[in-house]
Amino acid sequence: MAENNKPHIVIIGGGFGGLKAAKSLKQTSAKVTLVDRTNHHLFQPLLYQVAMAGLSPAEIASPLRSILRRQKNTTVVLDEVLNIDVKNRSITMSNGTLTYDYLIVSTGVQNSYFGNNHWAKYAIGLKDLDDAIEIRRRVLVAFEEAEREQTPEREKQLLTFVVIGGGPTGVELAGTLSELARYVLKRDFRSINPKSTRVILVERGERILTSFPKTLSIKATEQLRHLGVEVLTEVGVTDITAEGVELGDKFIPAATVLWGAGVQSNAITKTLGVDLDRSGRVIVEKDLTIAGYPEVYVIGDAACYTHQTGQPLPGVAPVAMQQGVMAAQNILNTIEGKPREKFHYVDKGSMATIGRSAAVAYAESLEFSGFLAWVMWLTVHIIFLIGFHNRAIVFFQWVWSYFTYKRGARLITGHRLHAGAPEKDFEPTTESTKLTNK
Amino acid sequence: MAENNKPHIVIIGGGFGGLKAAKSLKQTSAKVTLVDRTNHHLFQPLLYQVAMAGLSPAEIASPLRSILRRQKNTTVVLDEVLNIDVKNRSITMSNGTLTYDYLIVSTGVQNSYFGNNHWAKYAIGLKDLDDAIEIRRRVLVAFEEAEREQTPEREKQLLTFVVIGGGPTGVELAGTLSELARYVLKRDFRSINPKSTRVILVERGERILTSFPKTLSIKATEQLRHLGVEVLTEVGVTDITAEGVELGDKFIPAATVLWGAGVQSNAITKTLGVDLDRSGRVIVEKDLTIAGYPEVYVIGDAACYTHQTGQPLPGVAPVAMQQGVMAAQNILNTIEGKPREKFHYVDKGSMATIGRSAAVAYAESLEFSGFLAWVMWLTVHIIFLIGFHNRAIVFFQWVWSYFTYKRGARLITGHRLHAGAPEKDFEPTTESTKLTNK
Repeated sequence: MAENNKPHIVIIGGGFGGLKAAKSLKQTSAKVTLVDRTNHHLFQPLLYQVAMAGLSPAEIASPLRSILRRQKNTTVVLDEVLNIDVKNRSITMSNGTLTYDYLIVSTGVQNSYFGNNHWAKYAIGLKDLDDAIEIRRRVLVAFEEAEREQTPEREKQLLTFVVIGGGPTGVELAGTLSELARYVLKRDFRSINPKSTRVILVERGERILTSFPKTLSIKATEQLRHLGVEVLTEVGVTDITAEGVELGDKFIPAATVLWGAGVQSNAITKTLGVDLDRSGRVIVEKDLTIAGYPEVYVIGDAACYTHQTGQPLPGVAPVAMQQGVMAAQNILNTIEGKPREKFHYVDKGSMATIGRSAAVAYAESLEFSGFLAWVMWLTVHIIFLIGFHNRAIVFFQWVWSYFTYKRGARLITGHRLHAGAPEKDFEPTTESTKLTNK
Repeated sequence: MAENNKPHIVIIGGGFGGLKAAKSLKQTSAKVTLVDRTNHHLFQPLLYQVAMAGLSPAEIASPLRSILRRQKNTTVVLDEVLNIDVKNRSITMSNGTLTYDYLIVSTGVQNSYFGNNHWAKYAIGLKDLDDAIEIRRRVLVAFEEAEREQTPEREKQLLTFVVIGGGPTGVELAGTLSELARYVLKRDFRSINPKSTRVILVERGERILTSFPKTLSIKATEQLRHLGVEVLTEVGVTDITAEGVELGDKFIPAATVLWGAGVQSNAITKTLGVDLDRSGRVIVEKDLTIAGYPEVYVIGDAACYTHQTGQPLPGVAPVAMQQGVMAAQNILNTIEGKPREKFHYVDKGSMATIGRSAAVAYAESLEFSGFLAWVMWLTVHIIFLIGFHNRAIVFFQWVWSYFTYKRGARLITGHRLHAGAPEKDFEPTTESTKLTNK
């Protein structure tokens, strides 16, 4: 594919890492191809707000072609990568093949059910826009079905929501869901009282938000309880069915279960033929390449990088973006005959939102919680959203929701009127479907 | 269901007619139940902008519960009506039954393929949000697939779009689609030139927009041609396949076909057991009731009302809204022992938009076209949108699109990467599926 002897750089995945890498290659003479199976870059940190009816899908997604339209050396291909052949430097997609001189794998993660893939149907995870729209449908339909339900037990089951996993996604989903029931829906129903909704957050470890300092975990738990969320820690899930969640000898009847407990690498990393960690992430060298193939880079959530701290870096946007810049730089270095540099992560802190006026954050050695952390969270997320258009709309939606206690996207779409997992149609994000769906 | 002897009024359908009827019953002591199979009121006149990636679904839809939250005598039920038993004054839904003292049927229309239901898979119509999202997906994927296509014939087929039916929906779809290709996508692709896109509007009659004065039909045709649309009149469709559209002895290879040619009443009207017109619409009395059942009203697109002009009134929002007010008034009259009034339609004019700065409109004996008609169209549609929130966002989207030539919702969702009709999953809006899907 190398045209006029220009090197061809292929990037798989247009998330935070892949897009940053593509943008970092703007000024080069190399030919760049970005392959993604969706047509948009997704601002993942706000995905839970789509699931909870606060934002519309288009408000947190931008077409990759639009973002890169002025970058003339870069081509965007909408396709699904099926195989990477590192020996022959080629990738196979559903609709063709590409050869590369340099490859950046930035394929992210998908939900992991720890060997219980049959849970996927009942406990939906939050990885892409289709997941978010499906969660929104299930949550809103559960309230609708409860409204027309005559049996008190079934009504209670419909108004019980279990969120599994106390990481940032689980905390955000649980907090916002409780808010939705208590503030947004409270006057809309006639025969149910949305305030009687139970939202239960289940965490296997001894505290939620384990990646945060312990003091902030405690604050977050307090803020969640204040919003009406029941927080259960040191509790493991033993089964999930259409009827609810089994926690050892205890069973919680619940029509809606959300999954935020575990992720694993997209199965495509297996085709690289190199060492993976337990979650399927590629163990990368200090320069982000893989052993034996200095032209192949793996970045972001798909990579397991342990060199700096001894621990794998967390799967967050700042790691992916910094690695995207480094991978691009190392490719340019190689093209120019310079040595590759070691990646060094600069941790600027972390934040998680819980609900209205409630969040936790740390930066350097400073810790924040409550209203101040929440305002910091809002500000950072507006700034990092791509495009003036999305920033303006999201800002308007937030201001409007704050003052009216309404949500702008309370839509049930998809023609299905029943709560819980649909009988057919919906294909959960598991390894096999992701690699074969068209 | 009559509680404390209060009469029970059931309204089927939360479109323009049904919602207006519900709101007109606000001040009464009667108990009102509004049944709809979706959770939202849809602002249908802007649906084509969702299909053409200009607006997000939530921006033209409002939850019915939210709209009616303060109307304490009114209950909203999310359910599908399967049967109306006028003799026993009851309706059967997927999840229960309701008895009524008064019934307003406002179930609207669905696409009609004139006996060729197998066309539905290839020629998608535009009736609800799911249709609009599917059209958006097919149109955007066609460009994506053309970009990676190597064969010139197939590329040409992918870049040919046929819109069938020269009514307002067909005109709006064709004009906006041509604009999308020529202005919005023009710099985004590398191997195709979106300006080479063909958009063909096919009309069986001798002119497009037959419900408008002839001078405006001519203006509209000129404006469409100026936007690059090929307008074919007096041309009948003889077949539609996955490969394209057959027009008598001519075949147009086209991967994407949109249907705006015909509608028929929702099949539920058949269960009323009264006379229907050719399109399945219920022939109503002068007071909007049906023969023999003065407590049953049929309004909006589901009704065939010919008394005033000799011709059936058109299926447009103003007719439905005025009939909703009249049906509510006649029910109140009956409750208060007064006679029912005859419906009298006040025609305030009509308008259709074609594209950027292009529209046609008439009001009284005045006719407008071009920029002035377009500004009138924008103004009227912003005013009639429900809710400050939606008005503000749609206004912002329009201003932004006007100045940037971008579209705010260029999203492909639904995990499908291929153009044309999907192999499975999508259920077109035909009679049988609408009555049975759950």
